[in-house]
Amino acid sequence: MAFEVFETYESEVRSYCRKFTSVFQTAKGSKLWDEEGREYIDFFNGAGALSYGHNNDYIKERLIDYLQKDGIIHGMDMYTGAKRDFIEYFQESMLKPRDLNYKIMFTGPTGTNAIESALKLARKVTGRTNIFAMMGAFHGMTMGALALTTDMSSRKGAGVPLHDVTHIPAPYMFPELDTVAYMERLITDDHSGVEKPAALVLETVQAEGGIYVFDIEWLQRVAAFCKKYEILLIVDDIQVGCGRTGTFFSFERAGIKPDMVALSKSIGGYGLPMAILLFSPELDIWKPGEHNGTFRGNQLAFVAAKAALEFAKETNLYDNVKKKGEIIKNFLENEVKPLDENIEIRGMGCIWGIDFGKVGPVGTSRKVLDECFKNNMLIELAGRDDCVLKPMPALTIPEDELLKGLEIIKKSTQKVLAQLHGQE
Amino acid sequence: MAFEVFETYESEVRSYCRKFTSVFQTAKGSKLWDEEGREYIDFFNGAGALSYGHNNDYIKERLIDYLQKDGIIHGMDMYTGAKRDFIEYFQESMLKPRDLNYKIMFTGPTGTNAIESALKLARKVTGRTNIFAMMGAFHGMTMGALALTTDMSSRKGAGVPLHDVTHIPAPYMFPELDTVAYMERLITDDHSGVEKPAALVLETVQAEGGIYVFDIEWLQRVAAFCKKYEILLIVDDIQVGCGRTGTFFSFERAGIKPDMVALSKSIGGYGLPMAILLFSPELDIWKPGEHNGTFRGNQLAFVAAKAALEFAKETNLYDNVKKKGEIIKNFLENEVKPLDENIEIRGMGCIWGIDFGKVGPVGTSRKVLDECFKNNMLIELAGRDDCVLKPMPALTIPEDELLKGLEIIKKSTQKVLAQLHGQE
Amino acid sequence: MAFEVFETYESEVRSYCRKFTSVFQTAKGSKLWDEEGREYIDFFNGAGALSYGHNNDYIKERLIDYLQKDGIIHGMDMYTGAKRDFIEYFQESMLKPRDLNYKIMFTGPTGTNAIESALKLARKVTGRTNIFAMMGAFHGMTMGALALTTDMSSRKGAGVPLHDVTHIPAPYMFPELDTVAYMERLITDDHSGVEKPAALVLETVQAEGGIYVFDIEWLQRVAAFCKKYEILLIVDDIQVGCGRTGTFFSFERAGIKPDMVALSKSIGGYGLPMAILLFSPELDIWKPGEHNGTFRGNQLAFVAAKAALEFAKETNLYDNVKKKGEIIKNFLENEVKPLDENIEIRGMGCIWGIDFGKVGPVGTSRKVLDECFKNNMLIELAGRDDCVLKPMPALTIPEDELLKGLEIIKKSTQKVLAQLHGQE
Amino acid sequence: MAFEVFETYESEVRSYCRKFTSVFQTAKGSKLWDEEGREYIDFFNGAGALSYGHNNDYIKERLIDYLQKDGIIHGMDMYTGAKRDFIEYFQESMLKPRDLNYKIMFTGPTGTNAIESALKLARKVTGRTNIFAMMGAFHGMTMGALALTTDMSSRKGAGVPLHDVTHIPAPYMFPELDTVAYMERLITDDHSGVEKPAALVLETVQAEGGIYVFDIEWLQRVAAFCKKYEILLIVDDIQVGCGRTGTFFSFERAGIKPDMVALSKSIGGYGLPMAILLFSPELDIWKPGEHNGTFRGNQLAFVAAKAALEFAKETNLYDNVKKKGEIIKNFLENEVKPLDENIEIRGMGCIWGIDFGKVGPVGTSRKVLDECFKNNMLIELAGRDDCVLKPMPALTIPEDELLKGLEIIKKSTQKVLAQLHGQE
Repeated sequence: MAFEVFETYESEVRSYCRKFTSVFQTAKGSKLWDEEGREYIDFFNGAGALSYGHNNDYIKERLIDYLQKDGIIHGMDMYTGAKRDFIEYFQESMLKPRDLNYKIMFTGPTGTNAIESALKLARKVTGRTNIFAMMGAFHGMTMGALALTTDMSSRKGAGVPLHDVTHIPAPYMFPELDTVAYMERLITDDHSGVEKPAALVLETVQAEGGIYVFDIEWLQRVAAFCKKYEILLIVDDIQVGCGRTGTFFSFERAGIKPDMVALSKSIGGYGLPMAILLFSPELDIWKPGEHNGTFRGNQLAFVAAKAALEFAKETNLYDNVKKKGEIIKNFLENEVKPLDENIEIRGMGCIWGIDFGKVGPVGTSRKVLDECFKNNMLIELAGRDDCVLKPMPALTIPEDELLKGLEIIKKSTQKVLAQLHGQE
Repeated sequence: MAFEVFETYESEVRSYCRKFTSVFQTAKGSKLWDEEGREYIDFFNGAGALSYGHNNDYIKERLIDYLQKDGIIHGMDMYTGAKRDFIEYFQESMLKPRDLNYKIMFTGPTGTNAIESALKLARKVTGRTNIFAMMGAFHGMTMGALALTTDMSSRKGAGVPLHDVTHIPAPYMFPELDTVAYMERLITDDHSGVEKPAALVLETVQAEGGIYVFDIEWLQRVAAFCKKYEILLIVDDIQVGCGRTGTFFSFERAGIKPDMVALSKSIGGYGLPMAILLFSPELDIWKPGEHNGTFRGNQLAFVAAKAALEFAKETNLYDNVKKKGEIIKNFLENEVKPLDENIEIRGMGCIWGIDFGKVGPVGTSRKVLDECFKNNMLIELAGRDDCVLKPMPALTIPEDELLKGLEIIKKSTQKVLAQLHGQE
Repeated sequence: MAFEVFETYESEVRSYCRKFTSVFQTAKGSKLWDEEGREYIDFFNGAGALSYGHNNDYIKERLIDYLQKDGIIHGMDMYTGAKRDFIEYFQESMLKPRDLNYKIMFTGPTGTNAIESALKLARKVTGRTNIFAMMGAFHGMTMGALALTTDMSSRKGAGVPLHDVTHIPAPYMFPELDTVAYMERLITDDHSGVEKPAALVLETVQAEGGIYVFDIEWLQRVAAFCKKYEILLIVDDIQVGCGRTGTFFSFERAGIKPDMVALSKSIGGYGLPMAILLFSPELDIWKPGEHNGTFRGNQLAFVAAKAALEFAKETNLYDNVKKKGEIIKNFLENEVKPLDENIEIRGMGCIWGIDFGKVGPVGTSRKVLDECFKNNMLIELAGRDDCVLKPMPALTIPEDELLKGLEIIKKSTQKVLAQLHGQE
Repeated sequence: MAFEVFETYESEVRSYCRKFTSVFQTAKGSKLWDEEGREYIDFFNGAGALSYGHNNDYIKERLIDYLQKDGIIHGMDMYTGAKRDFIEYFQESMLKPRDLNYKIMFTGPTGTNAIESALKLARKVTGRTNIFAMMGAFHGMTMGALALTTDMSSRKGAGVPLHDVTHIPAPYMFPELDTVAYMERLITDDHSGVEKPAALVLETVQAEGGIYVFDIEWLQRVAAFCKKYEILLIVDDIQVGCGRTGTFFSFERAGIKPDMVALSKSIGGYGLPMAILLFSPELDIWKPGEHNGTFRGNQLAFVAAKAALEFAKETNLYDNVKKKGEIIKNFLENEVKPLDENIEIRGMGCIWGIDFGKVGPVGTSRKVLDECFKNNMLIELAGRDDCVLKPMPALTIPEDELLKGLEIIKKSTQKVLAQLHGQE
């Protein structure tokens, strides 16, 4: 009867709860507890929104303090101390050391809103309407962002045809095709039928597409291509930014400087709704209020965001991600991949994919997930036909919990593979 | 130098801060304090997001408690105790007593996201693409909702033409035209050129349009029209719901039952980002995850939302709004309107408009606002050419503060009118 | 078996042949003969394309002569003698006497192509995307023009939503509404949601909409409105131009000068495909070949077009149209309208409508048409639910044939009304 | 002064006349004469509309006869003897021998209208909105067809963004990419972002794209792909049908059967406007009149069309095209290509391209054209940057005239190449 309220009154659109069939009450770090006291290890991580772990004490203290002293909570886009503290800290400790001179736009507190803002600004700056987006991409569910998002299930929800976007093959899709040369041909061939875009939007690691890490060289060539043709390069770092790949911005490894960067999910530090759009100052031709929204000034999130950045610095968090990435990689390569020669392993830092697409029928990955959940682990799927199991722990996960989680994945995979082969 | 950080690093898109040129630090009830200790009275109210006042103690206590006990904060759309508590309370104390059997969809935590969800579902249910929206309406800034929003400044931000919406004249625009008969003609005349819509979206009181209260009879005829032609009636109660007009839902006064209702702003109780979409159960044909988003499960907001509803019940808050509405109306009609025969007063409950459109040149209202701010009051403009001063205090404002605020408006108006006439 | 070839091999999209169920072989003036020798009187007139009658001898002679001497027939948009002759004659005898300084664009030889050209140019000149079109309008069936066309059956054929057009209520639809003031409000109200258009497109007499003649005063106010706001006024004179209303251009009666005029149908003189777009010289910012098409240089049509204009001049044709208009009007008002008090008569010149919409159920007009056909007359329907019988004879019809035709209409109406009342 | 009338009164959109700066008066076979008596050889061929030569006597006789006996000229879509004769002959002598059971739709008499009809029907039949079109394609200039057309100059004329089409790389653009596999991936990958199309539209020989002949094997694989996924295959045979490539339908060489075929240009036989759409009977779900137009029944063109087919049969015309193709090919390969190693020769039958793209700067091809015109030849350019000279003589051209024309091309090329190298 625990789910009756939800099943009766909440819309059928709900999804994660169908996989994680418990009522959760409390959480800490990489653990959650449901109302019956059962403990879970979290390799799902709020789809990337909980990089600092659940209810991180360092942040929590600041939030309670801010609430207790009646710090202003709702601030629209007014000037507030909490916002100023965040901006200053973000500029001084994150942007300047990376030689990035971005201005900050506080968009509505969701990733999709940051992307919508970026599209509006890119079209406004260039006077062009078309946008290049990568096949395999996910950028959000409101109508502007949804036109970029590639999965058919989401797109069909639109109810109207989606326009003004040209989808570019991701390099892993057609290895024989030089996708940068392809884009160059599209915009220099006066008979391509494809309009020169205002911007190219991409994730440096496609997450929902199935955990595909784009090559450094490819990223650099893309950046050079965009610069050459005055196409704005917009990096959607909503899921793989904030240290997830081992550097704060996911594009640092390629040494490129996008024209715009969208951040959300873990930027709010504590799982609180927040999103920002960064862009080069010369692009800042917005008129006052031209894009707005009621919750752009979620002060509690600003307090948490600053605290999270401080915490990361003090714990040298982002650098440690690389080490954890090695642990995960080694485990997956050495312990999981050998279970079936058709398993593919992809990822970096604290975002990985175990691709069962060639292992068994569609649904195999889901069976592994279900087995993981039986073993008290939250973990998600991604990619084509949801065939990719996606271990994505908090950046803060202790090594023993990380290994424990990986073991659950291994055992669950073994069990499902045994069933699979038994059926044959 | 207080604003230097903002002016250097924050995007030019910022707007309210240009009117309210202070750095705010703390807030309580209907008051805010800036970093220099100056106190302000709040007739702006977070654009309607702070109906229970700033940092309401009843709610605050619950939030701190929830944080302290490590209640799960980020919950995607998983089942949680906090969400169940909210759903149950909302169903039992808000919907059932009003004989409303809505299901609840937790959309991304912004009003525009709730509207996008409603549009998707309406198109999905009906198989139609067109939407009717009212001239004067504001429904949000992401591309789906923006197509409905009417102000040109916002629309131009789109960067591409906006489609699939037919704008219907609001009844106050052409009093000689029966707008319901007009809509009926559009969809029954086989040569109108206007496709039958999936839905009609409206605010029962147009807020951003300039505080226009739609007649009960008109609302009833609209509801009957929609029912007759199987067009879904979607009420956007984001700004004027949650008791703002004297009943929890703004449409209660008309005795109608919309097919969908969008709530945001004050539904989060404490100014925390939250939005929900309510709809009749038979419309709930969503597939799992067909519309999603990372912050649909902002548990802290659910805790605040439930607490706010309890608080409202215990303090008989919504009923008191009617009384405050009378106070405001009497003051504006008797003290402000007589200052100039061309002033128009409109509104109800705790949302009012003082229309200076016929009083002086465009910009007159802004001068009154500036004068109010000099007298330590936050207040906004709305409507055509921003000609309408918009007193919108918290529902919880004590009577003495309310009167004090109204006096500031009166004095500010007097001063500006004196300048205006002196110039002539 | 006469129709077997058609019914077996021609698409189901065919329509007129379903009403006029004969195989036609020859034609002359206002008469046609089918393969069985049966003679018909033509009040259908090729939907307005045969204003000079079938196979007009004056024109025919020129065509045969041109063919015999191997005059160039297909000329793309090359310079030819036939084209020069047409241009010169059209400028000297049609435009200059009317003080119209239009340039001529030879578009693809169909009305819809002329409209598509006008829309492209209007958008190019103004940089705006929206177009105002009147409810009740018909402007063509290709996708650009179809977005303006209002009848639902045609619009549904599009297969995709139609965009970038705002439909304006025709003045007869809501007599209480000042439609010019309405348009002015739409573009001056910064919260209308309706973008200022590049152009307003209209027929001065709505033909397919049901034969509605727009008032001179209304047309003048519309022209002034367009001029004031720099909106291009485009008159679609495809059906009601070329003398149909008693002047060569239908807008002459209002003394206005549209920015663009589309002509087709009878401009080709002999029923040959031809279309032109006229526009003020300062609008001529086309780049070479920016709109093109293979049959823009249908030289045979140019020869016929010039001959037709000469013929009209020699026979004082257009002035005589007014006289015929009086004859038709008197007959319809005095002989047909009295048959049923609910019959409505509308029209001018040689285009009239007998509206059965209030006389009997949908389909009544069709019965009258069928009865007319039984009595050897071709005539069409128009308007809402096809309720309007549309007598539209050639401008050249002799008075006796005109009266004979009108008698057929009267008798057919009488018969159907008798059946109708007998059924009650 | 010869051009003054045109330059003063005709729109700047005119294009061919800027290359062929003469006023043409008469024409016969492959020759034209201007008003000064100068004779030209025609390798332009009305952009493919004059495959039977100018003013072909066999056809001419029928036209004059039809005119003289007052055969009905304008017939809307009524049943007429001329139409029936055409249908019967076309079915019996063209379709049945090829085992093609198409129904015929008489669309508006332009190629673009036939394409618009095809798009509407494809969307209607499948319920899908997207269309696949090939990069390099040209399909027309009205808004529906223009969305498919690829050259940027044409597309920019639209004035609004063009939608609902996905452009597929032509196989010659990225030889390393298997374009059929590419399309298959787009519609089977649930994360491609590209909606399954209603239809794939293609020319089997891209004409305006630069004379690219698609491989038989590729065409067969495309046809199989379309069949497998129930995507309608629409062949645009407007320019390269009617025997241009050596068979009546250009796709015969591949042994495929498209679902729809668009014909225009030379189908009218004598350069008269005509267009038809052929489709499989099971697709014929049109409602009566759902796509219409005033000039669908251009009877004179039907008379010419039938006569042209008879003429072709009697003269064994289409088979002779292959022989002429060999002559042209040999000449171009042996006499023209050796003039510069960077010249590329492409084509088949009576449509060829001499690609100067790699020979010299953009504009080189135009210089060759100008030189040809000085030598009394009409010839056009095509392709990227207009770099391809396009010899496209009438199918009926006598061998001596053909060789004479080819010599002009050779000499003109030599002269321009000499200038080019002299300049360096």
